[in-house]
Amino acid sequence: MLQAPHWFSEVYPHHGSAFSLKVSEKLHEEQSPFQRIEIYETEWFGTLMVIDGCTMVSDRDNYLYHEMMTHPALYTHPDPQTVWIIGGGDCGSLKEVLKHPEVGQAVQIDIDERVTRLAERYFPDLCSSNEDPRARLLFLDGIQWVREAAAESVDLIIVDSTDPVGPAEGLFNQAFYRECVRCLKPDGILAQQSESPLFHADLILAMRATMQQAGFAATRTLFFPQCLYPSGWWSGTLASKSPTGLSGFREAAARDKPFETLYYNADIHTAAFVAPEALGKRFHLAQ
Amino acid sequence: MLQAPHWFSEVYPHHGSAFSLKVSEKLHEEQSPFQRIEIYETEWFGTLMVIDGCTMVSDRDNYLYHEMMTHPALYTHPDPQTVWIIGGGDCGSLKEVLKHPEVGQAVQIDIDERVTRLAERYFPDLCSSNEDPRARLLFLDGIQWVREAAAESVDLIIVDSTDPVGPAEGLFNQAFYRECVRCLKPDGILAQQSESPLFHADLILAMRATMQQAGFAATRTLFFPQCLYPSGWWSGTLASKSPTGLSGFREAAARDKPFETLYYNADIHTAAFVAPEALGKRFHLAQ
Repeated sequence: MLQAPHWFSEVYPHHGSAFSLKVSEKLHEEQSPFQRIEIYETEWFGTLMVIDGCTMVSDRDNYLYHEMMTHPALYTHPDPQTVWIIGGGDCGSLKEVLKHPEVGQAVQIDIDERVTRLAERYFPDLCSSNEDPRARLLFLDGIQWVREAAAESVDLIIVDSTDPVGPAEGLFNQAFYRECVRCLKPDGILAQQSESPLFHADLILAMRATMQQAGFAATRTLFFPQCLYPSGWWSGTLASKSPTGLSGFREAAARDKPFETLYYNADIHTAAFVAPEALGKRFHLAQ
Repeated sequence: MLQAPHWFSEVYPHHGSAFSLKVSEKLHEEQSPFQRIEIYETEWFGTLMVIDGCTMVSDRDNYLYHEMMTHPALYTHPDPQTVWIIGGGDCGSLKEVLKHPEVGQAVQIDIDERVTRLAERYFPDLCSSNEDPRARLLFLDGIQWVREAAAESVDLIIVDSTDPVGPAEGLFNQAFYRECVRCLKPDGILAQQSESPLFHADLILAMRATMQQAGFAATRTLFFPQCLYPSGWWSGTLASKSPTGLSGFREAAARDKPFETLYYNADIHTAAFVAPEALGKRFHLAQ
């Protein structure tokens, strides 16, 4: 039971647990220059991408993550014209970003071109906006990208990366955040996936503190379910250059959004930013 | 990998997935007159109770379920003096209910005394209010209890049961709901666990419809994370006898709650009732 080839299991060694998906077929496997990528056909979750043994994206539930990593930040920013997505090689965040007519350019900077090439083949729906003239797909090191970018040149940076180990480690430290602060316009926002509130509460606290130490003036964390990720409960953390940069919410625009979603809406926006009692107290104490 | 005796796995056969916990020891196992009960010591989730192969409660994350199955309903009702808990043999919901000073009597009616006896031994924290003079623990069939109870005799009925298969099946049908309507006072509320929004959306819709057909005038569903339950995302559904019975929220009382919680607070209360976009549309269409 729960053994390959019928099951793919991701074990969470520090949290004594594992999530498994029943697979009908391994569609692809390769070692890219950066990581090991596997694609499976599953019984209920549709197509599944696994990177370095961690489940990344499935047809069935990716809408939760992609909607919540994008729309809350985009409707918080007063006028998000330029967006960078660091990571996000499966193109799901890019697709959501491009639903916003205000966005004039969305640049996706993923270090590993193979993730995108495989997404184009196995997740065509996520890649359905790749040909949008506002989209630019670059295969570069995101850390180097922000280091070399012009000051005050972007409205929103979305860090849609793997966990803070391996290739993505450098996307969770003060040096990276300082470069983000520099690149963002005065009302700019950084949005980054920030792991599980149940498994990684300390990491969320540390990340918020590091963002503040790097020069961000405000941070807010949002919460959403995500079956495929450790504990089934996930978070994203927003940081703004301006002290009031996260207080705004273009609520009327969100209520009148010109696109379909499965999870996000204006009420979910507000609800997602409510912290659980105990974690909220820790956020408050840390300020 | 992921095999007994080192792992306990619950497989979700209709959803091609499984959640596994690393166990250090099986502490107890028995076949009660109603179900198979197992108790494990786990590596990270503390003590774990399993009933008929389904993970029921762990030290680590039971606060989510128990807080969300009780406090939203108690702070929605204008004056919850009498509460029945159908099921709930681990006593975790009873403990949360008794935190409310308004409650004068809380009756727990679980068909299986063995669940409670084992909870007393292995989950002493959940049973820490069992000696409260307001608590009454009965080991009876909940269906029979509501059938024989006096009309308009209770303010709040909480159905804290296993899944709608096996012993709990009769707690999810119109006949049971009709008896609940009869037993509830005019401003009475029923609160029932209603499975996973990702895996069982159709069940939630059907349950709300059945409640309405049985005579409840209004229904509302709330959402919360629950790592141990299928998909990691769970729900509870409230039904009221009066059309306005779910519109109230004693928000000032919830903000000033005289007890500690780990997840619930007044803002979580409001946030939890926000439905995901697609599911909310289905709720609306079904009305």
